[in-house]
Amino acid sequence: MSDPKREAHQPAATSPFELPDVSGLTVGVLGGTGEQGRGLAYRWAIAGQRVILGSRDSSRAAKVAEELGHGVTGTDNATCASQADVVVAAVPWAGHKDLLASLQSPLVGKIVVDCVNPLGFDKQGAFALTVPEGSAAQQAAALLPESTVVAAFHHLSAVLLLDPAVVGLDTDVLVLGDVRTATNAVQALASRLPGTRGIYGGRLRNAHQVEAMTANLISMNRRYKAHAGVRITDL
Amino acid sequence: MSDPKREAHQPAATSPFELPDVSGLTVGVLGGTGEQGRGLAYRWAIAGQRVILGSRDSSRAAKVAEELGHGVTGTDNATCASQADVVVAAVPWAGHKDLLASLQSPLVGKIVVDCVNPLGFDKQGAFALTVPEGSAAQQAAALLPESTVVAAFHHLSAVLLLDPAVVGLDTDVLVLGDVRTATNAVQALASRLPGTRGIYGGRLRNAHQVEAMTANLISMNRRYKAHAGVRITDL
Repeated sequence: MSDPKREAHQPAATSPFELPDVSGLTVGVLGGTGEQGRGLAYRWAIAGQRVILGSRDSSRAAKVAEELGHGVTGTDNATCASQADVVVAAVPWAGHKDLLASLQSPLVGKIVVDCVNPLGFDKQGAFALTVPEGSAAQQAAALLPESTVVAAFHHLSAVLLLDPAVVGLDTDVLVLGDVRTATNAVQALASRLPGTRGIYGGRLRNAHQVEAMTANLISMNRRYKAHAGVRITDL
Repeated sequence: MSDPKREAHQPAATSPFELPDVSGLTVGVLGGTGEQGRGLAYRWAIAGQRVILGSRDSSRAAKVAEELGHGVTGTDNATCASQADVVVAAVPWAGHKDLLASLQSPLVGKIVVDCVNPLGFDKQGAFALTVPEGSAAQQAAALLPESTVVAAFHHLSAVLLLDPAVVGLDTDVLVLGDVRTATNAVQALASRLPGTRGIYGGRLRNAHQVEAMTANLISMNRRYKAHAGVRITDL
């Protein structure tokens, strides 16, 4: 028997390398005044994407947006969530749950991209925290049952994103989710960043290790004095 | 106050890119008749490393060793463990705990390299299993308190390792552990495989996500019809 919902989500005829045109989408960045949010906003705006920064403090968001230029605007998180087509949650792990719970209503029907890494730090460096839902992305999915949650952008260095002298990021972006139209759109958004490819990395249940891998990259950065990134080979 | 043990383990003066000469070490491969074990043995033996395959069935180990050629020998797991300088556990997750517990005595004082990925499979693909100790590598460390456990070689495709037509593996090997002399030695062994680099990837407490990432690579392989590998950029 045919299942129209499944067919809509999993268009088997499409090549995995063929991605939709997302240039007309407005991207909202929650926690957009933080380093990661600003870095992503900056790169997308340069690529011609319309970007709205969200923050608890709308005047701070407006100020940061003006500094970034390239048409970026700033507002409060709820307005950002309701005005954007795709909403990226770039908030610290400590504020993740409360923020998403408070935005359930404006996020209905939208693609929500979780790039949060639940990490702890001690004198031996970074380590992965245990998340009851399995991962930050699965926590988002539990909090937002009427949104489509995708996990991506975990391994990008905010330093490199924000450095105008860096012309290519030389890293791939792993994109995880259970709805193919949504992962395809986020892969396309990832591929608009300079020097990156958006690559399908599995279902949401396999998001934990991608989030946690950031602890390993931090260890490498410390040992090798680098901004380590990840490339997937053979594709 | 100076701590000689710590100093011996963490020689701060050495460059992270400078690795020891390991060409004189004998590598034992437990579970060496499996695909992953055979693949590693084959590549090391071609590179000139002395390799001993271990198996529950010593005559099967001897037969597989003869097929591999290049001086590889085969014996039972306990003899393999006692004769090798560095011992790689390339066994299925289901047999991991019992095998290592049974080899506690011959593994005393040795570097034990865990490359086991605790994964489950269902109709949606692969997923990471929960390991009470945190990871296969941490389970090994708990079972072998008088050995030095290092985690590595999780993401190598056995198909590519065993294919003589593949001249370069085009992937990096993440090496995790808490004792620098041991991680350095394993990084050097990883760098003897063709087209790979052995890269320090963090402490053993961050091994879980590296093991689990194999589930994501399996998802990519399925989507892209590839043998996905991982390269670390900026180093």
